[in-house]
Amino acid sequence: MDNKLILVTNDDGVNAPGIKALIRMMRPMGHVIVAAPDKPQSGMAHSITVNIPLRYQKISEEENYEEYGISGTPVDCVKLAEKFLVPRKPDLLVSGINHGSNASINILYSGTMAAVLEGCMLDIPSIGFSFCDYSYHANFSCLDEWVTRIARIILENGLPRGVCLNVNIPETGGEPIRGIHITHQGEGRWEEEFDHRLDPRERDYFWIMGNFINYDGQPGSDLCALENNFISVMPVQYDMTAHYALDYLKKIFNNE
Amino acid sequence: MDNKLILVTNDDGVNAPGIKALIRMMRPMGHVIVAAPDKPQSGMAHSITVNIPLRYQKISEEENYEEYGISGTPVDCVKLAEKFLVPRKPDLLVSGINHGSNASINILYSGTMAAVLEGCMLDIPSIGFSFCDYSYHANFSCLDEWVTRIARIILENGLPRGVCLNVNIPETGGEPIRGIHITHQGEGRWEEEFDHRLDPRERDYFWIMGNFINYDGQPGSDLCALENNFISVMPVQYDMTAHYALDYLKKIFNNE
Repeated sequence: MDNKLILVTNDDGVNAPGIKALIRMMRPMGHVIVAAPDKPQSGMAHSITVNIPLRYQKISEEENYEEYGISGTPVDCVKLAEKFLVPRKPDLLVSGINHGSNASINILYSGTMAAVLEGCMLDIPSIGFSFCDYSYHANFSCLDEWVTRIARIILENGLPRGVCLNVNIPETGGEPIRGIHITHQGEGRWEEEFDHRLDPRERDYFWIMGNFINYDGQPGSDLCALENNFISVMPVQYDMTAHYALDYLKKIFNNE
Repeated sequence: MDNKLILVTNDDGVNAPGIKALIRMMRPMGHVIVAAPDKPQSGMAHSITVNIPLRYQKISEEENYEEYGISGTPVDCVKLAEKFLVPRKPDLLVSGINHGSNASINILYSGTMAAVLEGCMLDIPSIGFSFCDYSYHANFSCLDEWVTRIARIILENGLPRGVCLNVNIPETGGEPIRGIHITHQGEGRWEEEFDHRLDPRERDYFWIMGNFINYDGQPGSDLCALENNFISVMPVQYDMTAHYALDYLKKIFNNE
């Protein structure tokens, strides 16, 4: 497999431990090009940079390895890399390893998964990896076997056009990971909390916070897999049409 | 309908002509609360503000009308409004009117539609309105009848749980709008272009640009409706699972 071209990105920034682990796992598989934000871009979702210009800087270069830091969002990184930094269409795009879960609706807020969707729109087989341990110094070393296996399966088999993967890895508290489940997006929501404070000039300000509420009782969901110490591999599409609601809308718009 | 509570937001900022037009259209229908970014937040997608605190400021208050400017993204605005600015769950959330199309994959980059998805996750019937005229001084006055009609239909009938609307209005070059089509997300992509320049210190920088390529040949898509001078009303869901790919993944992960 050593002729494979692999593009690596993330949203926590090019210096995060999660991307360092992912780079280490990918390098035995081929030529690795890293194009990641030069600073943390967590929570940036699918945003692009339109009001300020972008820059990139080569951080290092070795045999079969190049690393770039880019001044924009994860989606900017994929767009810029595809245009300037890769010699041909990559065989695989991997994003992560994210410090924290991107299961359920977290996919919508996730810069990690936005980069993956952007790769998918460019017809590159694309996978996002997230580890359900929010600590910056999480232990990624126990994940090598699983991440490598998933990447190899996709390098060998490909993905249907318009489909990418959201892979979430459970934090098992020392228990062994039990295997891989193919899943659908689980039901949950964020219950908002704001930490309301006064600044030294007595003006209000707010830190956004929140608790994730798991509403899911469904076997087969990503949340269910993670709760049972399985890795969740979920196929993702960028068609957001609620096809099942088309008939309802036709009825209410014609019967008005 | 004058007891209805309507939350209005956008991504172009509280002073944009598009939201001013939308506010004017909504006010005859009930109590309107505006909670919009205090500066333009276009292209911010579903991002949230986590590294700096949020602030809000009351801009004006009249009978059945309150207007707030918020220092964050469109999604921040919805979260903060739901917690602090509305007296009860709104009967309707409207976002826009966006200056430019949010058809096809543009929904993924759109702050206007991210606010709508956020409202949907809070179980508020939510509609995003976009006008396919990118000019800041587009003529919104001809849209009153259509926007009002769509909002009234949803206020009267509601939407299925987990479904919101992406409404795109064609720029017809003076021709009459021919009606409303219920649509699915059309196929298209951005072909990246970067405007590559040198700064006064001879260092590279890039402005992100791009041309939208319409790959769609399908009747029933949002792109097709707009091309034929129909308003596109598309049902949107936040479940991003590619259900049709589940069997393929089960096969390649078990047969490895």
